[in-house]
Amino acid sequence: MPGRELEFWFDFASTYSYVSARRIDSIAAPSGIRVRWMPFLLGPVFASQGWDTSPFNVYPVKGRYMWRDIERLCARHAIEFKRPEMFPQFALLATRVATAAAAEPWLQSFCMWMFHAEYVRGMDITGPEAVTNTLERLGLDAEGWISRAQSTEIKQALKDRVAQAQERGIFGAPTFITADGEMFWGDDRLEQAIEWQLKRR
Amino acid sequence: MPGRELEFWFDFASTYSYVSARRIDSIAAPSGIRVRWMPFLLGPVFASQGWDTSPFNVYPVKGRYMWRDIERLCARHAIEFKRPEMFPQFALLATRVATAAAAEPWLQSFCMWMFHAEYVRGMDITGPEAVTNTLERLGLDAEGWISRAQSTEIKQALKDRVAQAQERGIFGAPTFITADGEMFWGDDRLEQAIEWQLKRR
Repeated sequence: MPGRELEFWFDFASTYSYVSARRIDSIAAPSGIRVRWMPFLLGPVFASQGWDTSPFNVYPVKGRYMWRDIERLCARHAIEFKRPEMFPQFALLATRVATAAAAEPWLQSFCMWMFHAEYVRGMDITGPEAVTNTLERLGLDAEGWISRAQSTEIKQALKDRVAQAQERGIFGAPTFITADGEMFWGDDRLEQAIEWQLKRR
Repeated sequence: MPGRELEFWFDFASTYSYVSARRIDSIAAPSGIRVRWMPFLLGPVFASQGWDTSPFNVYPVKGRYMWRDIERLCARHAIEFKRPEMFPQFALLATRVATAAAAEPWLQSFCMWMFHAEYVRGMDITGPEAVTNTLERLGLDAEGWISRAQSTEIKQALKDRVAQAQERGIFGAPTFITADGEMFWGDDRLEQAIEWQLKRR
């Protein structure tokens, strides 16, 4: 039932998206809420606000706090975390593969393993190696999916999704949109988004 | 015991500071945690980030979301809220009175009534009328306190506090600082700050 789905908009670069990716299933599943994973790119959204990188780099004081906050948050939720050397990671290929996999049963697993490589192993996931490794780990045709991810159709599908994010007023990640169109921004609004969805179904 | 105090840094202009002001007692008091109310001004902090007004005005998409979020949050916590016509309100006089009242038993009441005027009655609290009304409501010598608030000593004390905020890496409000110096930003971190303080005392 698509009408009951909670949309989970995320960017692989986003640290708080990683935390939500790790938490969302354990909160949504017991309530019978299905989550639709919506990978997108914050870059164009930030660019329209005049930023050429993450706001955590634009405002270093805020950035220092974010790393500390993420560390505490992960400890609190017993989530593994290792700060990668590179931040933010513009994971275009991974996002395109996730876009191509929109209807595949392995979409969530793929996203989880990419986040794992980035924020547990502290790896660079912007290149094709990490994407290939993850696809192969899932027993998939890595070459075939990477090729499909770079087709005109999928490139356009991702552009359309980013445009849709901006039209809907999304300005950061993670963002949760309930079945009745209510928007919640930030990992700290995940529980509230779930409650909203439950009350209105 | 000053060492057990939780510092609550807030700006009268800040909507999320209002929410925390309404919540903090009911969360801190049962744990025996004393809260030190630390009024300051975000203006100079924002100016150092290149903003001449609230980030919610600098980034209108984020601002629209904030008003919706505050409305939902207040409904959730059963907190009255009315959006004032003017935002943000640069409540310099009120902040100076609160600075002058740092050691007074009525500091918290004064702050609560100022927030009430602004975010429950939707009034303009930047002028002397609102401050005078609140001081009189508390049975205080309004003229005397307003005069003291505008003394060189208090003006300097507020400047010092803002400088201290910046030195400690405060970049928004509300901000909570535990007795062992751990910083938590945002109303959604209030419970976490209380837990931190409890564990380490």
